[in-house]
Amino acid sequence: MQARIPAAPERRFHAFVTGGAGFIGSSFVDRLLADGHTVTVYDNLSTGQIEFLERALTNPRFTLVRGDITDAAALTEAMRTIPNLVFHFAANADVRFGTEHPSRDVEQNTLGTFNVLEAMRTNGVKRIAFSSTGSVYGESTVFPTPENAPFPVQTSLYGASKLAGESLIQAYCEGFGIQGYIFRFVSILGERYTHGHVFDFYRKLRENPDELYILGDGHQRKSYLYVQDCIDAVLLALEYAQDKVNIFNLGAESYVEVNDSVGWISAHLGLNPRRVYAGGERGWIGDSPFIFLDTTKIRALGWRPKLTIQQGIMRTLDYLQQNEWVYERR
Amino acid sequence: MQARIPAAPERRFHAFVTGGAGFIGSSFVDRLLADGHTVTVYDNLSTGQIEFLERALTNPRFTLVRGDITDAAALTEAMRTIPNLVFHFAANADVRFGTEHPSRDVEQNTLGTFNVLEAMRTNGVKRIAFSSTGSVYGESTVFPTPENAPFPVQTSLYGASKLAGESLIQAYCEGFGIQGYIFRFVSILGERYTHGHVFDFYRKLRENPDELYILGDGHQRKSYLYVQDCIDAVLLALEYAQDKVNIFNLGAESYVEVNDSVGWISAHLGLNPRRVYAGGERGWIGDSPFIFLDTTKIRALGWRPKLTIQQGIMRTLDYLQQNEWVYERR
Repeated sequence: MQARIPAAPERRFHAFVTGGAGFIGSSFVDRLLADGHTVTVYDNLSTGQIEFLERALTNPRFTLVRGDITDAAALTEAMRTIPNLVFHFAANADVRFGTEHPSRDVEQNTLGTFNVLEAMRTNGVKRIAFSSTGSVYGESTVFPTPENAPFPVQTSLYGASKLAGESLIQAYCEGFGIQGYIFRFVSILGERYTHGHVFDFYRKLRENPDELYILGDGHQRKSYLYVQDCIDAVLLALEYAQDKVNIFNLGAESYVEVNDSVGWISAHLGLNPRRVYAGGERGWIGDSPFIFLDTTKIRALGWRPKLTIQQGIMRTLDYLQQNEWVYERR
Repeated sequence: MQARIPAAPERRFHAFVTGGAGFIGSSFVDRLLADGHTVTVYDNLSTGQIEFLERALTNPRFTLVRGDITDAAALTEAMRTIPNLVFHFAANADVRFGTEHPSRDVEQNTLGTFNVLEAMRTNGVKRIAFSSTGSVYGESTVFPTPENAPFPVQTSLYGASKLAGESLIQAYCEGFGIQGYIFRFVSILGERYTHGHVFDFYRKLRENPDELYILGDGHQRKSYLYVQDCIDAVLLALEYAQDKVNIFNLGAESYVEVNDSVGWISAHLGLNPRRVYAGGERGWIGDSPFIFLDTTKIRALGWRPKLTIQQGIMRTLDYLQQNEWVYERR
């Protein structure tokens, strides 16, 4: 069996990962360390889990700084090591509850991104990769939705706060010679997944296997992406896309109905719960009933997701079954 | 001579105008008072001028509250009178100097708009009109640029902060049942104009009539709109557009080169200055070399600008010549 050829030393970089203890962030951290890079994580451990960094913490190329992105001074100090690249993943990702605490998205997502950019400017850091969202398209009228879709109208505080983050990054690219990578994710699935519909459905079915309460009418159409496929795409874009501002949709080449997902999850668990629907086209205020992104642009770089949506959901469910402790941590 | 028929009493409203001591804001205030409405101005008088409210201050239907939109508590208190409608004009409008103080746009334009929306939510105010900008299109590839142009990439902190404001308003419309009116202005001209190229050129020519220093190469193509035409358009939209989110471009049906404007201004002043160009396509970092908005949507409501761009520039120059005190106030 042939050993994997390590990346040439000059290609190795020092990555600064905000939100690096979270689901997506920690998955990146492990990949970056495995690829030979040096990684500093900046995370307040509010939704991130120290357990996700167990392996990373044994690596001498890894540093954890506990801090909040709303603390501009601490963030600037943490970046004094002058990383080659910032992965900015720290965010309030609870899209559903925006209207219950409207300031949270603004503070954590918009101002948080501003603080990251200012820390970069202060320290002379010139490259940023940002986890944005398909929610910035609002309720698109074009499917699959391309990156240059018609000027969107926001429907959620989450989408609005992420679009504000994208816009700040773009302005910094123009104004301060930074290179920006903006990734508009669909919902990401996989190991370490700690919020979203699979998480909720599995929790509910553990509590009551006979009945499942479903937001909306079950016909919401959504696309998903397996976290390792997401990482492949981001790293590929960072290598081959070299515009000042690089924007990529990331998602599967298809979508599923919430009802499909319910069926797969139930079958996998050997259950047949009665389905109770909240009703309505949308799962919550600001929910987009159809999310399906055009990924022609990232696929043109040679990327394809390795798992189907169904496989991603199954992988997620397996993880949750083997790691029920994540339910105790929220 | 027939007297103007007053609006029916039930059509009269109480308007809360942030930035109501500024160029555009105070022009709205005078119009609203003349139309029989009640007006509360909230302004920190930082760039606004108390002189612009001289007439308003003699009107019993007018109230001035001196306050800053970054002071959320004071703003919320000021809105306890529960106006029918908020005109949100307060902003840092110095698009040119974004990179010199990057936090200013975020704080005043993005967070300021968030504070206005929160004050509205707290007090149950349900309607907002917002002065956005054609700068949110970044460097558009479509001219004239329609409201549903391709998803833009921001090139200035000003544009980014205004797009963030738009997005917040849209999310509040969806999440909290607010009705939003977003107006993307080209540069506005006319009486009380206190910043922009006519202001700068007249100042420079007073100081040195023989030479004029011009940012960029003079071929920047821009559209402008006379302030009273702008007010007509906004009031028309408020009356006839009744979607949840109403977005309108406001601008002239044409554009001019900076060089055209220099020629008209020089001729009007009887001067023939030597033109010295800074060079480059853009006047400053983030300047868009071509701004020309498609105004089909507002024109479909029956609106037409009454003044041409050239007439607007002349009107502005006349105002500046008769009100040189505005140069002492900056």
